[in-house]
Amino acid sequence: MIRHGQVIGVRPEKLEAYRQYHAAVWPEILQMIQECNIRNYSIYYKDVNGIPLLFAYFEYVGDDFEADMARMAADAKTQEWWDIMMPMQQPIETKAEGEWWAEMEEVFHLD
Amino acid sequence: MIRHGQVIGVRPEKLEAYRQYHAAVWPEILQMIQECNIRNYSIYYKDVNGIPLLFAYFEYVGDDFEADMARMAADAKTQEWWDIMMPMQQPIETKAEGEWWAEMEEVFHLD
Repeated sequence: MIRHGQVIGVRPEKLEAYRQYHAAVWPEILQMIQECNIRNYSIYYKDVNGIPLLFAYFEYVGDDFEADMARMAADAKTQEWWDIMMPMQQPIETKAEGEWWAEMEEVFHLD
Repeated sequence: MIRHGQVIGVRPEKLEAYRQYHAAVWPEILQMIQECNIRNYSIYYKDVNGIPLLFAYFEYVGDDFEADMARMAADAKTQEWWDIMMPMQQPIETKAEGEWWAEMEEVFHLD
């Protein structure tokens, strides 16, 4: 199992819509996430010094993360979901090239 | 079980020391964390648009979070650890009153 921590901005005028969509995520999206071997997936929101941020934590239990992410990205319903989510999000300036959500560095873990 | 997501700043000149301390946390600290019913505890680092931030995720499995946190805060070795950690940290301006690490709002969870 590999843990992931990620961060992205959310447009303040879209925060309430983002909350509402995530309180009732489409069943096909939840199913695809699980089929792609993601477990224990949480997203948090916090206004950090005026920057509205989302933090994701999840556990990947498969054996080929890139292949599973490619499978998710190829799913039509997921694309439809992302077409609504992505305009609500604002990737951080300090993300790596090619990222949308920026991966964070794990500095501590205790089971 | 109750999940917690938290955020705090880290002083950039202290980041490397913070990493090193957390790569070799004192055994008494790890034991106290577990005795206080915290599980699956991760801390992540990311420079977010020039703001160096730490994000914590953990799962509380006890039945009195405030009492367990008070117990931890009363532990001499934990106080010694915090005396080293706290000057490396910089609470965010938008934290709630009385917080050190700022609690975040869970907007999504999938087991």
